[in-house]
Amino acid sequence: VTAAHSMQAKMLRRLLEVGSTENIRKSLEKIHPSDIVIIFSELQASEQERLLQILFSIKKAGKVLREMPEYLLPEVFPDIDDKKLATMLGNLQPDDAHFLLENMEEERQHAILELIPAPTRQYLEQLLLYPEDSAGSIMNVHAPKITEGMTAQGTIEHLRANREERGIFYIYVVDEDQRLSGILNLRDLLFAKSETPVEELMNREALTVGPEEDKEKVAQFFAKYNLLSMPVVDESRKLLGVITVDDVIDIVKEEATEDIYYMAGLSEPDRAFSSLGESVRRRLPWMALNLGTALLGALVIGYFQESIVKAVALAVFLPVVAQLSGNVGIQTLTVITRSIALGELEFASAAQAILKEMGTGLMLGLIMGLAVGGVGYLWIGNMYLGIILSCALVMAMVLGGTLGAVIPLAMRQLHIDPAMGSGVVVVAITDVFSFLTFLGLGTVLLDQLM
Amino acid sequence: VTAAHSMQAKMLRRLLEVGSTENIRKSLEKIHPSDIVIIFSELQASEQERLLQILFSIKKAGKVLREMPEYLLPEVFPDIDDKKLATMLGNLQPDDAHFLLENMEEERQHAILELIPAPTRQYLEQLLLYPEDSAGSIMNVHAPKITEGMTAQGTIEHLRANREERGIFYIYVVDEDQRLSGILNLRDLLFAKSETPVEELMNREALTVGPEEDKEKVAQFFAKYNLLSMPVVDESRKLLGVITVDDVIDIVKEEATEDIYYMAGLSEPDRAFSSLGESVRRRLPWMALNLGTALLGALVIGYFQESIVKAVALAVFLPVVAQLSGNVGIQTLTVITRSIALGELEFASAAQAILKEMGTGLMLGLIMGLAVGGVGYLWIGNMYLGIILSCALVMAMVLGGTLGAVIPLAMRQLHIDPAMGSGVVVVAITDVFSFLTFLGLGTVLLDQLM
Repeated sequence: VTAAHSMQAKMLRRLLEVGSTENIRKSLEKIHPSDIVIIFSELQASEQERLLQILFSIKKAGKVLREMPEYLLPEVFPDIDDKKLATMLGNLQPDDAHFLLENMEEERQHAILELIPAPTRQYLEQLLLYPEDSAGSIMNVHAPKITEGMTAQGTIEHLRANREERGIFYIYVVDEDQRLSGILNLRDLLFAKSETPVEELMNREALTVGPEEDKEKVAQFFAKYNLLSMPVVDESRKLLGVITVDDVIDIVKEEATEDIYYMAGLSEPDRAFSSLGESVRRRLPWMALNLGTALLGALVIGYFQESIVKAVALAVFLPVVAQLSGNVGIQTLTVITRSIALGELEFASAAQAILKEMGTGLMLGLIMGLAVGGVGYLWIGNMYLGIILSCALVMAMVLGGTLGAVIPLAMRQLHIDPAMGSGVVVVAITDVFSFLTFLGLGTVLLDQLM
Repeated sequence: VTAAHSMQAKMLRRLLEVGSTENIRKSLEKIHPSDIVIIFSELQASEQERLLQILFSIKKAGKVLREMPEYLLPEVFPDIDDKKLATMLGNLQPDDAHFLLENMEEERQHAILELIPAPTRQYLEQLLLYPEDSAGSIMNVHAPKITEGMTAQGTIEHLRANREERGIFYIYVVDEDQRLSGILNLRDLLFAKSETPVEELMNREALTVGPEEDKEKVAQFFAKYNLLSMPVVDESRKLLGVITVDDVIDIVKEEATEDIYYMAGLSEPDRAFSSLGESVRRRLPWMALNLGTALLGALVIGYFQESIVKAVALAVFLPVVAQLSGNVGIQTLTVITRSIALGELEFASAAQAILKEMGTGLMLGLIMGLAVGGVGYLWIGNMYLGIILSCALVMAMVLGGTLGAVIPLAMRQLHIDPAMGSGVVVVAITDVFSFLTFLGLGTVLLDQLM
């Protein structure tokens, strides 16, 4: 697979250097839009512009742009004039056109929408009204549909006359008010007798979602029930559009990226090949937040500096205590947020989860406390240091386990994404608490440490 | 959607308390296997056993087990005897049976395989030979197929006679040696004239994968080309099976969980409702690794303890320097591993990525260095402390950015999962390095700090 594709890519690149436009055009027609994107991203700016022009001339530009990673779009749009973009968007499926529009600045959006003719423009304006990340914002409004009262043969002829470009495997049956009455599987249609009414073939109990539903929730439905597509209906069951499984894969990937990024203190778009300026701008706020929490820890240490001068072993073990208790917090937090994201927390109660994570923190705290206390005793040769280390670790690790469970569960209750920033909060609190307990105990037993 | 489902669940739970087996059976037949799993997990052990028995009696147990999260299976299998399991597995699709077998201990696997009759047993034994996480291990071996030379009408009749339970939308056309010659879309079949030969309808250029291909790679193909299914063929193009999009969603979710878990220092299975013992056992090795790296840092601090006693401000700012440089490392690491996981690193060269991340580390280092240096100067009132802080931070953050990019890219070159453990390594090295530079500079300029 891959070998054949990289051959195509090499050929196209050579053609862009030396070949005629006609040959490039022919070559482009055979290459999948996703592969054109990869070739595109490897070209010089001037070559990119030429490639884009040829893509417009063979009407493949829209499909190629649709496959681009979102962070590339703002670099490409300025090179294309409004009229070209409007024509292109008018010819795309509305959900694809909507995706591209969403990646433009609002001013440009309006300018281009004005150039798109009436029925399509209204569709697009409607789609832009749905909240970001809602089912409505990702649905395909051109669902293949028929009205009740048709026969199997009639349906086949209707479909043949209205050939859709996309792979349609389900046909939506609506009543005269466009309300969804059932879903017809293409396979059942194929096997049916010509005169069978569609009402006898269709499935009346299909799952539906409202246009306001969160797309992450929609993705969970697809995964849970192994769906290939799902109709979007309003309160009166009027069919608004369809969500298909290929969009769902993108959603699952996006949501996973978002969760991973939140954990590491990152905001989209920040990719391997985002510009340096973009990456710095995206990472700086998280870094500043981190500085704030780190300085809180420094304040605590500053408060105990006299103890440290008298028993410098306290300074030696400070980072060990902080790192281990922060680690328990992050482990717990990750398990809980992931369980929430995968919809697995339906499997039992939050209280049970919190109790278990407290217990895990206690067990790990006892084991690591004994280990670190032992190391401290043997290294520094002071039994009290060992005891202080053990006690501080047990307490800090129980807190880490508790916070790692309580914070994301509380955020979910408040309808905030549980992954968002909770890592920074958990680490900050466990750090400060571990410094306080360790240096506090050290100060109380200072005479035994000197 | 959700409301109706939780109604069913409530009803079933009440039935399990008071109802007759007959009523429970009727109720279970109407509930989706995924929903039965949720109800199952909320029951007491004795109720679970009863539910399982009824599921076996209505032959729905296999489908319900197939939908269970992997960590629940080891709790359920011991309650079912070998014979029942063997009958159930023999009736499941081979890929589903294979999934369940993979979640058993090897001894049990063999005992049960022996009880499954010949053709199915051989299929399953074959599937178990493919490496874990390979395309072969997840494919469905019962691909709907026909041999070359049939007409459209002949194909439809053949399919009608061999009705498959699963939603088939593609039919695979093979030659007399079972080699794949093309793929037929059900829609094209529906629209074709009866006498058209399938050779004229089928797509000869479909993407295929080998059975040894990594399933993560397979998922990337699906996402990139918006596929619904993909045939698995051997070197001679013999059709071995088919991978379908519903498996791909599970793969994408699993891989995301794996990456998130590696970053936080976690190993599967470790979920919100894993047992406490399981969680402790899974987290302890990572914790021990963390202790090791933390003690390395402690060694460095111990080496410089005399400087700390003389200038205790060094101890106050130690965690700030370590946390910020570790943070740059984790941010960079996350961006790079995520780009690798999403297959986006096809978009340009590794060298370019490393250079950019070094640059980002330098920029962030300069900004944070100035900030922390300023705070240090104003708080402690010593300009040299500010200078030392700034210099140490710039160096440590450039290193963090560099390592965050170099380590995962090097791991990918060595065909190791880039996410695995690289977080611990990056943080350990940046911590030790930041301690060394900060305390080293502090020792050189000690007279100015006192």
